[in-house]
Amino acid sequence: MTDTAPTRIVFLLFPGITQLDFTAPAQALSRMPGARLAGAAATREAIVTDSGFAIVPTHDFAACPQADILCVPGGHGVADALGDAEAVDFVARQAAGAQWVTSVCTGAFLLGRAGLLAGRRATTHWAYTHLLPLVGAEPAPGRVVEDGNIVTSGGVTSGLDFALTLIARLRGDAVAQAIQLAIEYDPAPPFAGGHPDHAPAAVTEGLKARVYDAATARMAAALGG
Amino acid sequence: MTDTAPTRIVFLLFPGITQLDFTAPAQALSRMPGARLAGAAATREAIVTDSGFAIVPTHDFAACPQADILCVPGGHGVADALGDAEAVDFVARQAAGAQWVTSVCTGAFLLGRAGLLAGRRATTHWAYTHLLPLVGAEPAPGRVVEDGNIVTSGGVTSGLDFALTLIARLRGDAVAQAIQLAIEYDPAPPFAGGHPDHAPAAVTEGLKARVYDAATARMAAALGG
Repeated sequence: MTDTAPTRIVFLLFPGITQLDFTAPAQALSRMPGARLAGAAATREAIVTDSGFAIVPTHDFAACPQADILCVPGGHGVADALGDAEAVDFVARQAAGAQWVTSVCTGAFLLGRAGLLAGRRATTHWAYTHLLPLVGAEPAPGRVVEDGNIVTSGGVTSGLDFALTLIARLRGDAVAQAIQLAIEYDPAPPFAGGHPDHAPAAVTEGLKARVYDAATARMAAALGG
Repeated sequence: MTDTAPTRIVFLLFPGITQLDFTAPAQALSRMPGARLAGAAATREAIVTDSGFAIVPTHDFAACPQADILCVPGGHGVADALGDAEAVDFVARQAAGAQWVTSVCTGAFLLGRAGLLAGRRATTHWAYTHLLPLVGAEPAPGRVVEDGNIVTSGGVTSGLDFALTLIARLRGDAVAQAIQLAIEYDPAPPFAGGHPDHAPAAVTEGLKARVYDAATARMAAALGG
């Protein structure tokens, strides 16, 4: 892979995908010199994201070119997608020919279902890390975790850090820095609590009770755990 | 606006929109209790974003309900959209009835063209702040700038900080903190240089020469500057 060779980046798209899991790395990677982005789903009918908007796949699974970088985003739709043999098979086939196999958020479990995380260090959204052993993965600390050619990242917004890290690896620091500057990624979150390590315990516990106790139980069931 | 009243959030969509300008606030705001999101364009045909993906508007301009929060994203398509009388009129009409009028990145210039920034403190993508006086606005420091009911934010990723700040204002800190935690917004950018204030000068100058000298000239011409 040289500075000028085209790099094919394929995102898996599926109903209930978290739109930002997909868009954050797509935005950064789309500005990498030579990048050719694709979004693949079972058909080219628009898929509805978890924000209620619809995105049109550029390719169906059959017509999608081989990825150099495969990226599987997450979302509440992952629990259903785990039971979609066609989607899981697409991930496995694409991964076999890809130089880099990557995920954002709960997309890690689709990599896992495709047999790609066995014995690998990996991460996912903080609420789901305890489920990684169900796909044979070893939970590892860090917002971006690399093990061989597999790069997994944490929840939702970590896709930005993942993409910039990968761009630096592929094209050098100067290219990645320029993209970070172009998207003005100079974050100033209003609260310190973007991770349970430093969020108020009451906020974390409330969120688990409202959302993640049920969501992780659904995911565990879908994983056969 | 109470905790339970629905809040209608309308995003302007247009060709060449920066997909992350739209998706970052949409992702955060979609998780705000009572939020009802819409994306409006001239027609309901899919619009192509600057990342090459296509998003289907939920409404055309004529059918779009009145926004409580109007949000205008930016992108390289803004220079063309400034000449689109129908889009600018939509922004002006919606803004007249909205409680909050907001922008991300160069979306500020569409607010400006609609006459909404005259005499207002505002911000935009760092490369374009010097053009704000062309729409009568006073450039103000900060990643999120509030003046009356108008909230403008900086480039691309600042839409996350903007949305969480607005959610805190509308629903309280606990709700905003929970959403920040749900999207694991605990940023760890690989470089310190997400803003020219702390990017290496060579990176900033290179990016200006490759992208922003021409892009800001196009924007200035579109603004009649």
